[in-house]
Amino acid sequence: MNYAELSESLRDAMEKQDTVAIESLVVEFQPADLAEFLHEEEVDVSLKILAHLDIEERAEVFGYLPLNTQFDVSEEMTAEGLAQLLNCMESDERADLFNLMDEDRQTAVLKLMAQEEREDLRRMASYEDGTVGAIMTSNYASVPVTDTVLQALDKVRKTAPDAETIYQIYVLDKLHRLVGTVSLRELIVSRPTALVSDLMVSELITMSPDQEQEDASRLISRYDLLALPVIDNQQRLVGIVTYDDAMDVAEAEATEDILKGGSISGLEGSIKDASKFMLYRKRIFWLLLLVFANIFTAAGIAIYEDTISKYAVLVFFMPLLIGSAGNAGSQASTLMVRALGTGDVELSDWARLFGREILIALALGLTMAFAVAFIGHYRGGQDIAMIVALSMVAVVMMGSLLGLSLPFVLKRVGFDPATASAPLVATIADAAGILVYFGIATAILGL
Amino acid sequence: MNYAELSESLRDAMEKQDTVAIESLVVEFQPADLAEFLHEEEVDVSLKILAHLDIEERAEVFGYLPLNTQFDVSEEMTAEGLAQLLNCMESDERADLFNLMDEDRQTAVLKLMAQEEREDLRRMASYEDGTVGAIMTSNYASVPVTDTVLQALDKVRKTAPDAETIYQIYVLDKLHRLVGTVSLRELIVSRPTALVSDLMVSELITMSPDQEQEDASRLISRYDLLALPVIDNQQRLVGIVTYDDAMDVAEAEATEDILKGGSISGLEGSIKDASKFMLYRKRIFWLLLLVFANIFTAAGIAIYEDTISKYAVLVFFMPLLIGSAGNAGSQASTLMVRALGTGDVELSDWARLFGREILIALALGLTMAFAVAFIGHYRGGQDIAMIVALSMVAVVMMGSLLGLSLPFVLKRVGFDPATASAPLVATIADAAGILVYFGIATAILGL
Repeated sequence: MNYAELSESLRDAMEKQDTVAIESLVVEFQPADLAEFLHEEEVDVSLKILAHLDIEERAEVFGYLPLNTQFDVSEEMTAEGLAQLLNCMESDERADLFNLMDEDRQTAVLKLMAQEEREDLRRMASYEDGTVGAIMTSNYASVPVTDTVLQALDKVRKTAPDAETIYQIYVLDKLHRLVGTVSLRELIVSRPTALVSDLMVSELITMSPDQEQEDASRLISRYDLLALPVIDNQQRLVGIVTYDDAMDVAEAEATEDILKGGSISGLEGSIKDASKFMLYRKRIFWLLLLVFANIFTAAGIAIYEDTISKYAVLVFFMPLLIGSAGNAGSQASTLMVRALGTGDVELSDWARLFGREILIALALGLTMAFAVAFIGHYRGGQDIAMIVALSMVAVVMMGSLLGLSLPFVLKRVGFDPATASAPLVATIADAAGILVYFGIATAILGL
Repeated sequence: MNYAELSESLRDAMEKQDTVAIESLVVEFQPADLAEFLHEEEVDVSLKILAHLDIEERAEVFGYLPLNTQFDVSEEMTAEGLAQLLNCMESDERADLFNLMDEDRQTAVLKLMAQEEREDLRRMASYEDGTVGAIMTSNYASVPVTDTVLQALDKVRKTAPDAETIYQIYVLDKLHRLVGTVSLRELIVSRPTALVSDLMVSELITMSPDQEQEDASRLISRYDLLALPVIDNQQRLVGIVTYDDAMDVAEAEATEDILKGGSISGLEGSIKDASKFMLYRKRIFWLLLLVFANIFTAAGIAIYEDTISKYAVLVFFMPLLIGSAGNAGSQASTLMVRALGTGDVELSDWARLFGREILIALALGLTMAFAVAFIGHYRGGQDIAMIVALSMVAVVMMGSLLGLSLPFVLKRVGFDPATASAPLVATIADAAGILVYFGIATAILGL
């Protein structure tokens, strides 16, 4: 049965309170699919269904729920039930949930957890949002550097039920410092008497827990890693970031950049489920800011009000010209925001790219000028044609160079380059474009 | 040594032709880093350095090069050298390279390859760009369904040097049909005499080779898979897609959507290295199209030329109003493009989201109207204030609803919803905004 059929049947069984059917259906779901089903149901339905799973499966399905839904469901659990669930959850996921609870609830739940898990949860919950620490897990497989392959395999077998991955195994010295990694692939093809220290790779790619998640995701993707070890400033292993969490981070970062590119402030979680007020808040800031930025364009127009009332035809070409400035600028900034975002381009590349953009923008501007010169000639004669063509070359170049440079400037002063959204660049290019256009017009018409 | 130091030293050793130093340096690089180094050097330097690696390492480093660079370097190799390299490359990567070669070269190289590899290459090269077939690899680990754990582990050990992953093992029946998967984790913790058929998972997530890469990447991310099996229409296993290729696909898709959002047609590979002509070509199409779309806005202005020459103050508010229509529209379309792209929102959600947007856009419009009414009053009195405020509510609502709907319409008729770029939505909203604004003005001023 596919997801649609399964959810149909499960909904049916829930209505009929057919416990046997429910029990046999829930185990047929992929954990991620059952989580999606629960996310669409009421909290009390979720609780009932979760109760049909054994604790390991329950923790896995629960971990796939969006964080807010996890919290809503957890609020209806007893402290005992919740503590039991937390014991079995992945260490990064339970820390996120823990951080949402109020203090009383945190204390109550901590008290009921096993000591080792409690300490782990306390430590993991202390890492700030957005840091590597907040997405790493402490459930890794490790062996002492003195082990033989046989000993190591034995240890890995014992770790298997709890570790998030046993395919990368971390080799530690007596002081818990990371000295190497060995893959399970390497272990199973090696002689049982071989030493782990002879097989391990010791050129390691590592991060520290306070670095940015985005960078961890980039390293995992660049080096095709299964997991990235995280060490403290004394080289001690504190956790690992697995590739599946890195994929989630990369997707969330791409979403953030895309929304910023449309001048929407960061929005977490599903766009479909976001509340009206949340969406209002995330959008009004930039809309208002851009209205006030548009006043500069308006002021530019006000300066040339005399010219406009004498040559009303000039207003006709305004949207074409300032639109083109904005569009060329949006293109250039979009390219740079993405290239800076993926690490394709560095701050130091600006000068070379600026040089390249001058030529590209000139070619774009000339093509566009050619296209609009005819319309200019038709609507207003030779003078207007020349004004429109010259202005077009000027505004396309200005918009492009501005769009290219703004993300670099923002990054340089410590802002997210993605703040250089298409609407922001377009608005700035508009204001400058008006001045260029009417400036050229005034000069040529001799006003 | 970090990457910068390593490349510095290697460049140094190359200049001095210090073979011993070169040999010891190249093995210190991570394969992905050495590829980056080679990418920045001339082809002949790359060839020299690659010659210092054994064939397995050479194939791995070579596989990390951008495809165009791979091709340039391969063109300088002998047919023998290239055939040897292709023998060791990953099956999806070599198929991409193979497809770039001219026919004579393809024939020459194929002749020199081992028969098994040749057949694999022929088959893999036949899948179309963008399909699952083009990123899948045929180097997977498989065992017969009749095996015991002991037998399976033995087979996996033998496959280990060639398989891209041995952590997911595919269980096949006599007709090569996929009947289940078992993880290496499961195998190493189970009794040696247990049957694979008792351990395997048989509820499988699979794809067919002609489906879209994007969907494979989405499934891998959703279900946290290490690899996704690909089967033909007779259930036979033809390959697997691994998580690292899925990450690359997800990144490329995000880049494509971001660039489309800035009205730049799809650009493959590095933005930094793209040629000037290529960038010109990718940008001019939309710039020209949008100029002609802006003519509608201009035509709107032409209709109201009389109104404008009587009330020049109306021109002052033009950029504020049409800018806001465009900005609100860009926001709404950006949200929907991303939500449709990640699968957060489906076509069938349109009506509900449209309803939500009416309320959000009304709130946004009222806030904006409040902000500009004062400026309207200051610059032109009560009538102008009312015109500006009314127009603002109308254009923000119109822009938002249009921006929200356009991606759905595009998707419905079979286009990529990401074509609803910020500049396109802004341009359409501008044209409609002009009509609304001057229409309201003409009505209120009784012209």
